[in-house]
Amino acid sequence: MLRVDLVFVGFGNVARRFVRLLEVRRADLARRGIEWRVVAAATRRHGTAANSEGLDAVRLAEAVEAGWSLHGFDADRVGSASGVQLIERLAERRTEARELVVLETTVLDIAAGQPATDHVRAALRSGAHVITANKGPVAFAFSELESLARTAGRQFLYEGAVMDGIPIFNLVRETLPSVQIQGLRGVLNSTTNFVLTAMERGREFGESLAEMQAAGIAEADASLDVDGWDAAAKTAALANVLLDARITPQEVERTGIGHLTGEGVRAAAAAGRRVKLVSRAVRRDGRVTARVAPEELPQDDLLATLRDQQNALVFETDLLGDLSMVQLGGGLTQTAYALLSDLVTLARTVRRSEGVRP
Amino acid sequence: MLRVDLVFVGFGNVARRFVRLLEVRRADLARRGIEWRVVAAATRRHGTAANSEGLDAVRLAEAVEAGWSLHGFDADRVGSASGVQLIERLAERRTEARELVVLETTVLDIAAGQPATDHVRAALRSGAHVITANKGPVAFAFSELESLARTAGRQFLYEGAVMDGIPIFNLVRETLPSVQIQGLRGVLNSTTNFVLTAMERGREFGESLAEMQAAGIAEADASLDVDGWDAAAKTAALANVLLDARITPQEVERTGIGHLTGEGVRAAAAAGRRVKLVSRAVRRDGRVTARVAPEELPQDDLLATLRDQQNALVFETDLLGDLSMVQLGGGLTQTAYALLSDLVTLARTVRRSEGVRP
Repeated sequence: MLRVDLVFVGFGNVARRFVRLLEVRRADLARRGIEWRVVAAATRRHGTAANSEGLDAVRLAEAVEAGWSLHGFDADRVGSASGVQLIERLAERRTEARELVVLETTVLDIAAGQPATDHVRAALRSGAHVITANKGPVAFAFSELESLARTAGRQFLYEGAVMDGIPIFNLVRETLPSVQIQGLRGVLNSTTNFVLTAMERGREFGESLAEMQAAGIAEADASLDVDGWDAAAKTAALANVLLDARITPQEVERTGIGHLTGEGVRAAAAAGRRVKLVSRAVRRDGRVTARVAPEELPQDDLLATLRDQQNALVFETDLLGDLSMVQLGGGLTQTAYALLSDLVTLARTVRRSEGVRP
Repeated sequence: MLRVDLVFVGFGNVARRFVRLLEVRRADLARRGIEWRVVAAATRRHGTAANSEGLDAVRLAEAVEAGWSLHGFDADRVGSASGVQLIERLAERRTEARELVVLETTVLDIAAGQPATDHVRAALRSGAHVITANKGPVAFAFSELESLARTAGRQFLYEGAVMDGIPIFNLVRETLPSVQIQGLRGVLNSTTNFVLTAMERGREFGESLAEMQAAGIAEADASLDVDGWDAAAKTAALANVLLDARITPQEVERTGIGHLTGEGVRAAAAAGRRVKLVSRAVRRDGRVTARVAPEELPQDDLLATLRDQQNALVFETDLLGDLSMVQLGGGLTQTAYALLSDLVTLARTVRRSEGVRP
C-alpha cells in the first residue's frame, strides 16, 4: 500500500472536481494500492488551509464554492503562506512513511509559465512528487524539471497539460516502446475550434466567442486562445516532451484566428475545405521547428472533422506511420481524470523503483 | 537482464518482418533489459527447425523466401513435429535461466479460431509465455486462455490481434486506469474499407477487390473480409477483452458488404453520407451485444473519414466520454511492431512480478 499526502496548490474547478472523483473512487484506488488523504489546499481568493492529520477535502470544496474562507480549516496555521512557502513547510515535516504529492492547478500566466513552474521546482527540490494539469511547466522548463525530478528521485507527471485526461504522454511512454516520434500535428485548442465551427454554421466571430464565454467555457479574456498562445504552449509542451525540442511557447511560430471572417470560413467550407487552428512540430536534421496557424484542410482530413470542442493529435512515427488520438467528448471531469491517472502512474512507478530510491 | 528463447509457430510475412525488426533493434532491446535468441521456427510449407543453441533468424527468413526447406537448420532434429508437439518438446527442456516465448502467427481458420488457439493453450500449459498477432485465440477463447495464463503465471499477449501495432489493449491496460469501457465502435477491416472507398470513386465492387488481391493486400479468397467474418472476429476479440463479453465471432450479428453496389455507395456519397463496415459492441444491463454491418455515416463522423486501409476504434467510456485511436498508415511493419511491443510488455511484466512467480 502506498500512502500519499496530497497538497493542492490551486483549488479551482479542476482540483475540486478531482477531489470528488477521488472520493468516489476511494475503494478502487485502495484496490490499486493507493491510500490517500488531503493535507493542504492553497486557493487564490479563499486563503489556505493545512492539517497534518488530514482534511475533509469535499467539505473544503464546498466551502470554496459557498464563497467562504478556508481559515477555519487551517489547524496547522499556515495562514497566508505563498504556494512555494506552503510546499516547503509541508516538505520539511514529511516522513518516509507517506509520500508527499503536490497537485499543481493554479491559473497560468502563459507569457512566463508562472507561478506553476516555481511551484513544481520548489516541490521537486524539497522532496515532493508533482502532478500538474498545467501546461506551463512542460512548455517553459521541461528539460530542467525533468532532470530535477530524476536527480531527486521524485515523479513529475503532467498528463492533463494537453487534451485533458486523454492519454498522450502516457500513451507514448507506456505503449509505444522503441517507436520514434518524428513529428506531431493536431487541433489542441477547444475555444478556437468551437468558434471556427460556429462560423462555418453562419455565426460571426464575436458572436460565437461571446456564446462560449457566456457558457463559462472560454475565459473572459479570450486573447490567449484567439491569438494562438494556448495552442502554442501546448505545442511547445508536446515538442519538449516527445521530440526533446527544448523550446518555449515564444519560439513557436504563431498566427491566431482573430483576422478570420465568417465569410472566409464559409467560402472555404463551400469549396470542401475546413479552416482549423493547426499545431505542428517536426524534427528535421536534428532540429525541431514548431508552429501554430489556421490552415484550410480537405474535409476528409481527420483534423477537419473535429467539431466544437473536440481535439486530436496525430503522431508521425517511424515504425507505425501516422496514428492519432482523438478526444470526441470533453469537460471538467476529463481534466480531473488526468490527475487521477497521474496518481495511479505515480503509485505504480514509485512501487516499481522501491528500494532503489535515495 | 531478461533472457528469452523465441519459438516461432508460423513463419510467414509478419514473423519474418518481426525477425528483421528484432535484429535492427537489438541494442535498443538490450537497453530495455531484453536479450533474445530464436530457438525454433515451424512453417507451413518449409518444414521446421530447432536449435537449442540459437538459430540465425534472418538466415531462416531468407531461406523461406528463397523457397528452401528449413531442414538444414534443424540441429535438434524436431523434423516434422506439429506446432503443439514442437511447443511441448521445447517446453520440456526449458530452464529457469531463460524465459520461453511462443510467437504465434499461423494462418487462421476463422470459423474455429484454429490452430492458433491450440498453440496458445499448449504453450501456456507447458510453461511458455505467448505473444500472438492472431485474433483467433482472443475471439474464441479469451476467458479460458486468460485464466490459464494467470494460473500458470505466464504472459498471454495479443496486441496485434486488432489494428496491427496501434496500441489498443495496451492503451486500456496501461493508460486508462479506473476508466470503465461501456461500448466500442470502429472500422476494423482494411480490405472492405479499401473496396468501399474505391466504389465511392467510381469503381465497381469486383474491380476494386481484384485490385487489392493483385497488390497482395487481400487474400485470394476474400469472402472472410467481404462477408464480415474478419471484422466479426475482431469485434468479438475487443468485446471479450474490454467488455468481458465471453462471446465468439458466431455470436456477433453480421452483415457483409457483398450486396452493396457502386451506384448505392455513390448515391449515399452524393447525399453527404459514407458507407462503412462498422463494428459495434455495447454493454447494457450487464449483457454485451455486438454486431458488424454496413452503415451510412454522416461525412463529418470520424469513422466516415477513413480512407483506403485506415482503421479506427472509438471507446465509449464513463470518465472520458468518447475517445478514439486512429490508424492512418498501415502495413507489415506495423503488425510486426505489435509483436515487438508485446515482447517489451512481457519483459516489463515478468520483471515486475519477479520473485512472486510460481
